[in-house]
Amino acid sequence: MNFIAAGLAVIGAALGAGLGNGQVISKTVESMARQPEMAGQLRSTMFIGVALIEAVPILGIVIAFLLVNK
Amino acid sequence: MNFIAAGLAVIGAALGAGLGNGQVISKTVESMARQPEMAGQLRSTMFIGVALIEAVPILGIVIAFLLVNK
Amino acid sequence: MNFIAAGLAVIGAALGAGLGNGQVISKTVESMARQPEMAGQLRSTMFIGVALIEAVPILGIVIAFLLVNK
Amino acid sequence: MNFIAAGLAVIGAALGAGLGNGQVISKTVESMARQPEMAGQLRSTMFIGVALIEAVPILGIVIAFLLVNK
Amino acid sequence: MNFIAAGLAVIGAALGAGLGNGQVISKTVESMARQPEMAGQLRSTMFIGVALIEAVPILGIVIAFLLVNK
Amino acid sequence: MNFIAAGLAVIGAALGAGLGNGQVISKTVESMARQPEMAGQLRSTMFIGVALIEAVPILGIVIAFLLVNK
Amino acid sequence: MNFIAAGLAVIGAALGAGLGNGQVISKTVESMARQPEMAGQLRSTMFIGVALIEAVPILGIVIAFLLVNK
Amino acid sequence: MNFIAAGLAVIGAALGAGLGNGQVISKTVESMARQPEMAGQLRSTMFIGVALIEAVPILGIVIAFLLVNK
Amino acid sequence: MNFIAAGLAVIGAALGAGLGNGQVISKTVESMARQPEMAGQLRSTMFIGVALIEAVPILGIVIAFLLVNK
Amino acid sequence: MNFIAAGLAVIGAALGAGLGNGQVISKTVESMARQPEMAGQLRSTMFIGVALIEAVPILGIVIAFLLVNK
Amino acid sequence: MNFIAAGLAVIGAALGAGLGNGQVISKTVESMARQPEMAGQLRSTMFIGVALIEAVPILGIVIAFLLVNK
Amino acid sequence: MNFIAAGLAVIGAALGAGLGNGQVISKTVESMARQPEMAGQLRSTMFIGVALIEAVPILGIVIAFLLVNK
Amino acid sequence: MNFIAAGLAVIGAALGAGLGNGQVISKTVESMARQPEMAGQLRSTMFIGVALIEAVPILGIVIAFLLVNK
Amino acid sequence: MNFIAAGLAVIGAALGAGLGNGQVISKTVESMARQPEMAGQLRSTMFIGVALIEAVPILGIVIAFLLVNK
Repeated sequence: MNFIAAGLAVIGAALGAGLGNGQVISKTVESMARQPEMAGQLRSTMFIGVALIEAVPILGIVIAFLLVNK
Repeated sequence: MNFIAAGLAVIGAALGAGLGNGQVISKTVESMARQPEMAGQLRSTMFIGVALIEAVPILGIVIAFLLVNK
Repeated sequence: MNFIAAGLAVIGAALGAGLGNGQVISKTVESMARQPEMAGQLRSTMFIGVALIEAVPILGIVIAFLLVNK
Repeated sequence: MNFIAAGLAVIGAALGAGLGNGQVISKTVESMARQPEMAGQLRSTMFIGVALIEAVPILGIVIAFLLVNK
Repeated sequence: MNFIAAGLAVIGAALGAGLGNGQVISKTVESMARQPEMAGQLRSTMFIGVALIEAVPILGIVIAFLLVNK
Repeated sequence: MNFIAAGLAVIGAALGAGLGNGQVISKTVESMARQPEMAGQLRSTMFIGVALIEAVPILGIVIAFLLVNK
Repeated sequence: MNFIAAGLAVIGAALGAGLGNGQVISKTVESMARQPEMAGQLRSTMFIGVALIEAVPILGIVIAFLLVNK
Repeated sequence: MNFIAAGLAVIGAALGAGLGNGQVISKTVESMARQPEMAGQLRSTMFIGVALIEAVPILGIVIAFLLVNK
Repeated sequence: MNFIAAGLAVIGAALGAGLGNGQVISKTVESMARQPEMAGQLRSTMFIGVALIEAVPILGIVIAFLLVNK
Repeated sequence: MNFIAAGLAVIGAALGAGLGNGQVISKTVESMARQPEMAGQLRSTMFIGVALIEAVPILGIVIAFLLVNK
Repeated sequence: MNFIAAGLAVIGAALGAGLGNGQVISKTVESMARQPEMAGQLRSTMFIGVALIEAVPILGIVIAFLLVNK
Repeated sequence: MNFIAAGLAVIGAALGAGLGNGQVISKTVESMARQPEMAGQLRSTMFIGVALIEAVPILGIVIAFLLVNK
Repeated sequence: MNFIAAGLAVIGAALGAGLGNGQVISKTVESMARQPEMAGQLRSTMFIGVALIEAVPILGIVIAFLLVNK
Repeated sequence: MNFIAAGLAVIGAALGAGLGNGQVISKTVESMARQPEMAGQLRSTMFIGVALIEAVPILGIVIAFLLVNK
């Protein structure tokens, strides 16, 4: 039963991280191409944003590892 | 049974945090590129917003940890 | 059975809060960049709005805690 | 069985309140930025609207509490 | 079994009321900002509309209460 | 079994009425703001339309009441 | 078993009627505002259309009543 | 078992007829408002189209009646 | 078991026919209003198209009748 | 069990054929109205396309007949 | 059990082929109407594309036949 | 049980290949019509792209054959 | 049970690879048609991107093979 | 049971990685075509972004391997 739970946790974590990061990074690339002189500032905002987004999915992966080793 | 519940909680938390944060941060990056002189104010609003969004998913992760250790 | 219910409650609360807040905060950031002189008023409206949105999901999290400790 | 029902009720209430309020408040913020001289009237309409929207989800949360304590 | 039914009824009522009202009120706010001299008439139409929309969900909540007390 | 059926009927009725009415009334508000001299005629058409839309959901609510009292 | 079937029939009938009528009537209101001199003709077309759309859902409601009384 | 089948058939028939007719009639109303001199021809095309669309759902309703009386 | 299969077949047939025909006929009505001198040719193309679309759903209805009478 | 399979096959075939053909034929009608001098060539391309699209659904209907007569 | 599998395979094959081909052929018709002098080249590209798209669904139909005759 | 798995594999492979290829080929046809002098280069890129997309679905079909013959 | 898992893995891998690659390659074709002088660079970026996207689905296919041979 | 979990984990990982990467890389290609002089910088941002996106799905694949070998 805990294995299924680990699988469900991976689904949520991977989808949440993939969709959220994909949206942020694609917008960053688009904005960098539109305003090249802002490139450094946008990229640093992107790093902070990606770190904030991945906080919860990484915790979900940790829970999945806990469930696998149970 | 509690393991499945932890998996469901992780799905909700990761998807909610990923989609909500992704929307906010991508809009912030886009707006910073459009109005560079507002960059500082937008980024500080973004930090407040991300903290407000992550409040509920973090609570959901806490519930998931409670369920795993039960 | 109550653990599953807690997991379902977390899904609803996290998704509702994440999507609702994400929409409000991203619009606020976009509007602040478009009209910088309204920034203070928009941000205060955003705080009220986020508080109103999070009322129901926080109650849902409370119910989830009640279900976990049952 | 009543715990599952409480979980389902929380899903409905949180999603309905989150999405409905998110739509109203984000539109209000956008309109306030477009017409600053209408800000007060728009915000008061927003408060009435949010109260009207949250009526049914709050009743749903009440039902969830009844189900948890049954 | 009747508890589950109450949960389902709450899902339908809260989602229907939340989405329907959210659409009406957000459009009203947008229209008031675009034509301030029509604000009173639009708001009174909004009240009638919200009352008409909430008729069926409130009946659904009543059914949910009946099911909880059965 | 009939309680579950009542719950399903409420889901359908509330969602159908909420989404259908929400669409009609929001369009009416938008059109009234665009053409104020047509406001009376639009509102009367809206009343007829809402009555026509709510015919089937109200019948569904009646069926739900029949099922609850069975 | 027939009660569940009645519930399913109500879901289909209410959603079909709500969404279909909502689309027709909202377009009619929008078109009346755009061309006031066509208002009478549009409204009569709307009545015919709504009657044609509701034919099948009303039959579905009839089937639901048959199933409830079985 | 045949009652459930009747319920499923009603869902399909009502949704198919509602969505298909709703699309056709709303487009007809919109086109009549844009070109009033074509109104007669458009409405006759609409009648043929609605009859063609409702052919299959009506057959589905007939199957549902057969299943109810089995 | 064959009754459920008939219900599933009706869902597929009615939805496929309703959505496909709805799209074709609504586009035809729209195009006739935009180019009245092509009306005859467009309507004949529509008849051929509707016949081609309904070929598979009608076969599905035939299968459903076979399953009901089995 | 084979009856259910026939029902599933009909769902796939009817939806695939309905949506695919609906898209092709509606685009053809739209293009014929925009460029009347290409009408013959477009219609012949449409016939080839519809035949190519219906190849797989017709095979699916054949499989459904095989399953019904098994 | 293999009959259900054949039904699932038909769903996938028919939907994949219908949606993929529908997209390609409708775009081809639209492009032919926009640039009549490219009509031959576009149609030959369409034939290659349709053949490439139908490769996998036809293999799926073959698997379905294998499963029916097992 | 392996037959169901083969059916699921076919669903994934056919949908993935159909939707992915449909998107690529339709864009290629559209781009060839917009820039006829690039037609050769676009078509060769399309062939490479289609081959890259079909790699994974073809492997899925191979797995389905393995499962059928198990 | 492992066969079903292989089928699920194929669904994920084929859909992920198909949709991701389809998006990348179609955008590349579109961009090559818009800026022919960038064609070589865009195509090399496309190859890198497709390789990066297919990394995870290929690993999923490997897992599916492991599950089939278990 | 752990095999099913591995299949679920692969679905999440492949979909998350495919959709997220597809979005980023397609935007990068589009932006490179629009601003060729930014090509190097955009591509390096793309590599960082893809690495950040694939972190969570790769962890999900690792969990899937753990589950297969359990």
